[in-house]
Amino acid sequence: MSDTRPARGTRDFLPLDCRRRDYVIGIIRKIYSLYGYQPLETPAIENLDVLLGKYGEEGNQLIFRILKRGEKLDLQNAESANDLADLALRYDLTVPLARVFANYESKLPRLFKRFQIQPVWRADRPARGRFREFFQCDVDAVGSESVLVEVELLSAVSDVLLELGFTDFVIRINHRRLLEELAFSAGIKREEFPQAAIALDKLDKIGRDNVAAELADRGFDQKVANDFLQLLEALLGDKNDASVNTNEHFNSSAMEFLSGNPLFSESKGLADLKNILEYSNYTSASGRLRFDPTLARGLAYYTGSIFEINVPDLSGSLGGGGRYDNLIGMFSGKKIPACGFSLGLERILVVMEERSMFPDEVLHDAGLDAVILSMDERFYDWALIIADNLRAFGFSSSVYPEFGKPGKLLRAADQLGARFACIIGEEEYNNHKFVVKNLSTGSQQIAGLEDWTQIIQELSTGPEN
Amino acid sequence: MSDTRPARGTRDFLPLDCRRRDYVIGIIRKIYSLYGYQPLETPAIENLDVLLGKYGEEGNQLIFRILKRGEKLDLQNAESANDLADLALRYDLTVPLARVFANYESKLPRLFKRFQIQPVWRADRPARGRFREFFQCDVDAVGSESVLVEVELLSAVSDVLLELGFTDFVIRINHRRLLEELAFSAGIKREEFPQAAIALDKLDKIGRDNVAAELADRGFDQKVANDFLQLLEALLGDKNDASVNTNEHFNSSAMEFLSGNPLFSESKGLADLKNILEYSNYTSASGRLRFDPTLARGLAYYTGSIFEINVPDLSGSLGGGGRYDNLIGMFSGKKIPACGFSLGLERILVVMEERSMFPDEVLHDAGLDAVILSMDERFYDWALIIADNLRAFGFSSSVYPEFGKPGKLLRAADQLGARFACIIGEEEYNNHKFVVKNLSTGSQQIAGLEDWTQIIQELSTGPEN
Repeated sequence: MSDTRPARGTRDFLPLDCRRRDYVIGIIRKIYSLYGYQPLETPAIENLDVLLGKYGEEGNQLIFRILKRGEKLDLQNAESANDLADLALRYDLTVPLARVFANYESKLPRLFKRFQIQPVWRADRPARGRFREFFQCDVDAVGSESVLVEVELLSAVSDVLLELGFTDFVIRINHRRLLEELAFSAGIKREEFPQAAIALDKLDKIGRDNVAAELADRGFDQKVANDFLQLLEALLGDKNDASVNTNEHFNSSAMEFLSGNPLFSESKGLADLKNILEYSNYTSASGRLRFDPTLARGLAYYTGSIFEINVPDLSGSLGGGGRYDNLIGMFSGKKIPACGFSLGLERILVVMEERSMFPDEVLHDAGLDAVILSMDERFYDWALIIADNLRAFGFSSSVYPEFGKPGKLLRAADQLGARFACIIGEEEYNNHKFVVKNLSTGSQQIAGLEDWTQIIQELSTGPEN
Repeated sequence: MSDTRPARGTRDFLPLDCRRRDYVIGIIRKIYSLYGYQPLETPAIENLDVLLGKYGEEGNQLIFRILKRGEKLDLQNAESANDLADLALRYDLTVPLARVFANYESKLPRLFKRFQIQPVWRADRPARGRFREFFQCDVDAVGSESVLVEVELLSAVSDVLLELGFTDFVIRINHRRLLEELAFSAGIKREEFPQAAIALDKLDKIGRDNVAAELADRGFDQKVANDFLQLLEALLGDKNDASVNTNEHFNSSAMEFLSGNPLFSESKGLADLKNILEYSNYTSASGRLRFDPTLARGLAYYTGSIFEINVPDLSGSLGGGGRYDNLIGMFSGKKIPACGFSLGLERILVVMEERSMFPDEVLHDAGLDAVILSMDERFYDWALIIADNLRAFGFSSSVYPEFGKPGKLLRAADQLGARFACIIGEEEYNNHKFVVKNLSTGSQQIAGLEDWTQIIQELSTGPEN
């Protein structure tokens, strides 16, 4: 017998899994559409050279390559994996966005707002919560440098989380240019800043002392590293005090200090941050934003504001994003500003499941309101008519394709997860009637098509027989 | 500059493409759910040995293989493509269903009704309407031999097509066992039948004479081949007469002839067909079915009823399916009956586009009801409040992130495809008002948040200013 498990690091989604995922994806799509972001889908397979070199050396290793076919596959002369492959599986949704923008620029509006919810593939070592096939939910606006782009994205993402039922999320926000200036003021040269940012990005995971050690490993002077971290910590304030540095209090001591300090008062990064925080008070992100000067984001491509969403019971983030003004133009050679946000579908699902945040109808509805049970095959015609009529009333219904004794049929109906069974015996058949049974309470009544809706209501809410 | 086109045989779906596809997929999901079919999703990548050998020699060649990674990739000792690959892209949705059923049988209901709408990949030579990445929309019921399974599938598929607006489709139906008996009566041995079926399957494409030639090529006696084709043609009757052999007339001359002929009167295939045709009169498939004794279906795995959907203006089919009682058990070694239907999403989209069957809101709605335009950046706070309120009213809205003169802003709004623009000038800002402009008629009015809904209605339907 073959191994019938899904391939390593991938998952099958059985009906209940699909319903949970569809529920979350449905809300994301609805909210993003409400903000005027447009759907975009790109192929799972891309030409290998579109992806190579876009994700750093580590990323290159994690790209799933697709073998050449037929005569193009030259086993004799192949020297490396890249000689054997011509295609690759999509690694993220940002490089495809850049490719699409370059390819169709003349057909797209100057301000292109798109969302894209599709799987990506990475040949990572699978671990708890880390898969080789997983969904990304990206929303991006391409074509404007205005902070209003950030404000709208933060509002849309907040609306998604609120609609999903999250009430305790915080969106940490920082700005790469301000962070660079803070680093500079502590003695870190501008060309060394990317190295410092990579180390700082690990603060949440490995803690302050290990970041200091990593900064030392990367060649930073111990005093400089310490000054940098101390400055950030002083600005961060008490991170357990939820009122510190939120956008309701954007004139916080941190902001006041920075605004009053001639080293930073002219900072474009600081000005952008203040505008984003202030404007966000007029949106759904009000009270959700928190200036966090320690936030770095690992990816090298960010050029401005950066954000990350956290909830108390998850060590990682629910999503993150930022401004990246030099990436979208990589295929066309133009400078095209862009800003975006990526929600982590798998993590959202994990937290929602742990917190029991799914509505009952998502968890318990097997998608079947009524199953029609025939005690004899002679009754199939009436069973089909009943099912057809119930569907016309808007109830999902199905004729059970076998006939038999009620006990056996009811067990089958139960297994299907139906809410109601409609049972046809000889007498019911002769009188164009059927017995409706509520499968969770056990109460039942005789019904005809004309009184189905009323009886369903009685059986759903009324006292048990 | 790199090649920014999607990989050969694949497509990018820009917003309008996505809306068209989402519209069709949404209806398919809705109707299948209404019949109690449950959603299932499987990974795009499968272990290579799950797929190898399941699609015949030609199929094996068309499977996209994924290169092994790291140390597992042994270039020195690889003798064939299969030594270099460990994974492959999903080739259809039926083998994954069989794998899922074997892997989770104890968790699934004995009668497992599922639909699955996902892309598949085939390394075919791309041609008009033939892609390397394309969607299949499968619906299957696993676990019952009852013809009620077929009846429900045919009803569900008919409802999908009717809801999409197709009024002229015909579902041709035949039965592999009856066809085998017809072949046998013409002198074709049972073990030769699969060869005859492969040739017969091409009747629509290559015509009667070429099928006869192909039968001869495959070693069939010329007279036998001729007798077989003549018998089928006699039973088919006038295929241009829409009333012949439909299920409303299932006691057609063909059925009467077969029922009265002792060679066929006891045929299980004939009995099944008659039951399917008769029961379907009580469902949405009423009047849609047509017994077509020449229908063969190419795939070798069918064991019972087979169907194919046609519309007059498409030479191929919109979809097809049948009963396959020996396939689902391939991984578990059990015999598990199953029957299913696959709709061709790409072909449905092509016909719907050619016939202009998409509703206006799918084609013309860019998904944005209102764009808020600020003549100065001081007005952004009010713009954000307006957009937030309009969304609360259910209108998709977005703040345009740049400010400027109305002319320039209106051109941008137009490019975004918005229905209305809300323009904020100095006076409007001071009075908490805005100018609402219908971007297609040009008519406009002053509005506040309190009268937005009423004014939108006036501007949508009223006379132009």
